[in-house]
Amino acid sequence: MDVRPAEGIIESGRHYFPLRVYFEDTDTAGIVYYANYLRFIERARSDMLRIAGIDQRGALEAGEGVYAVAEAAIKYRSPAKLGDDLIVVTSLRHVRAASVLIHQRVMRGQEILADAEVTAAFLTPEGRPRHQPRDWVERFERLMEEGRE
Amino acid sequence: MDVRPAEGIIESGRHYFPLRVYFEDTDTAGIVYYANYLRFIERARSDMLRIAGIDQRGALEAGEGVYAVAEAAIKYRSPAKLGDDLIVVTSLRHVRAASVLIHQRVMRGQEILADAEVTAAFLTPEGRPRHQPRDWVERFERLMEEGRE
Amino acid sequence: MDVRPAEGIIESGRHYFPLRVYFEDTDTAGIVYYANYLRFIERARSDMLRIAGIDQRGALEAGEGVYAVAEAAIKYRSPAKLGDDLIVVTSLRHVRAASVLIHQRVMRGQEILADAEVTAAFLTPEGRPRHQPRDWVERFERLMEEGRE
Amino acid sequence: MDVRPAEGIIESGRHYFPLRVYFEDTDTAGIVYYANYLRFIERARSDMLRIAGIDQRGALEAGEGVYAVAEAAIKYRSPAKLGDDLIVVTSLRHVRAASVLIHQRVMRGQEILADAEVTAAFLTPEGRPRHQPRDWVERFERLMEEGRE
Repeated sequence: MDVRPAEGIIESGRHYFPLRVYFEDTDTAGIVYYANYLRFIERARSDMLRIAGIDQRGALEAGEGVYAVAEAAIKYRSPAKLGDDLIVVTSLRHVRAASVLIHQRVMRGQEILADAEVTAAFLTPEGRPRHQPRDWVERFERLMEEGRE
Repeated sequence: MDVRPAEGIIESGRHYFPLRVYFEDTDTAGIVYYANYLRFIERARSDMLRIAGIDQRGALEAGEGVYAVAEAAIKYRSPAKLGDDLIVVTSLRHVRAASVLIHQRVMRGQEILADAEVTAAFLTPEGRPRHQPRDWVERFERLMEEGRE
Repeated sequence: MDVRPAEGIIESGRHYFPLRVYFEDTDTAGIVYYANYLRFIERARSDMLRIAGIDQRGALEAGEGVYAVAEAAIKYRSPAKLGDDLIVVTSLRHVRAASVLIHQRVMRGQEILADAEVTAAFLTPEGRPRHQPRDWVERFERLMEEGRE
Repeated sequence: MDVRPAEGIIESGRHYFPLRVYFEDTDTAGIVYYANYLRFIERARSDMLRIAGIDQRGALEAGEGVYAVAEAAIKYRSPAKLGDDLIVVTSLRHVRAASVLIHQRVMRGQEILADAEVTAAFLTPEGRPRHQPRDWVERFERLMEEGRE
């Protein structure tokens, strides 16, 4: 029996992450509560890193560091509703020494529901900015390379 | 490109639903926050109904009714952590006219993390108990039948 | 016995809303999860409206309309942690016919933890932009007036 | 300016904790999502401990231990809705060496919305059961004493 979480796939430098909208995601206005899109796109970022070979939990437990969002900007274009199947499309925009700029788009079929720009900063356990592991930066650059081809 | 949410599968009357633990699910004690197991098992129940051919959103929008949890009891045996892949195993225990008793177990591999008993009552839009659609009850009974075989 | 939720106060056109950080708000990195700041500031906006005499639930139930966030941008400066007492300071920046631009700042004592700009659009139950009730706009303008004095 | 979170009060051994229902708490069925009652009652437990002089964050940071819920059972009697003001009434039922049994009731005015029994176990940072600090047990016993008077 093969039942595994759908962590998405990377194609041409982009990560495509599927998710479904459950009761927990909606609010009394009948649509997905606005903060929950940030949860959706974090799931996508985490799985993109994982597929790219980056072990966030390992880095956290080893005391090496952890990503924290330094900045997020999101435009809500059309609301998602209970039972919708969505795709989060994630692409790296820019890799700096201690942070990454990421674009994330939430789609329902061909329709764009939300667009987000997220800056994730790598931090020490004490919360100070730290250079990302050299190895991770190389993986990011390879992904961006693929996106340009 | 086939990227779809992992809604799980039904086998021998049981629904197996996979999910992954993300940052949003954990708390500062380093484990999954206790209320979030109820979110996990609701996702599983919703997808089990969907696979069984039951359209919750349709029933809600048509004003026919909606399930609400009347009772939930959960035992936490071992904590889940960031990045864990879990399976929620759901089986129907008992079908009454206006409610269903469901058993749900959260597993990590062969390890049992939590066991829950949930009573879901079918309600009118005004919140009064209502008989479940005849068709749904039949689907539930078929599922329970398969579980006994 | 007087135990009531702390909905904050409005002074010189600004709303000051207190809240405490609980386990549910934190994640395994030991800090408040980034999406939860959007929950914090929505609580503040809702209570500011309520104190200003605006009945969101009434408008929703009467089918008049509901606010939905059209755009949100947030900068995270310093993380909040378990047990912290925070204040959300909210001020209206700009009132248009069908939307409001709001600035919200999350403070811990004198320290700025996060700064957000939120555009809330008034929508019909079907999700189309609608003029805000005349009466609400007047209340908003009065608040902004007080902030300039 | 006195704006502080409403942490509730203890009277005759019971803790009364007020909270308001926001959009984040509700779902598309128009009522508070069932898992969120567990968030509400955890806020109440945390503030009861704090008022009783117990420092959970300090114990966690010092590596002494942390409470984890071992068991929770909840009956949902009537749903809460957007904008409702609720009170969580918490009383200790039983104090054992390494755990506490707690009763929690969610009220809206005189109406009972939910009743919960929660067993909280004190755990080492590695997740093994540990005796609660002697001092804490004494505080709990004092609270229970007051409840019987």
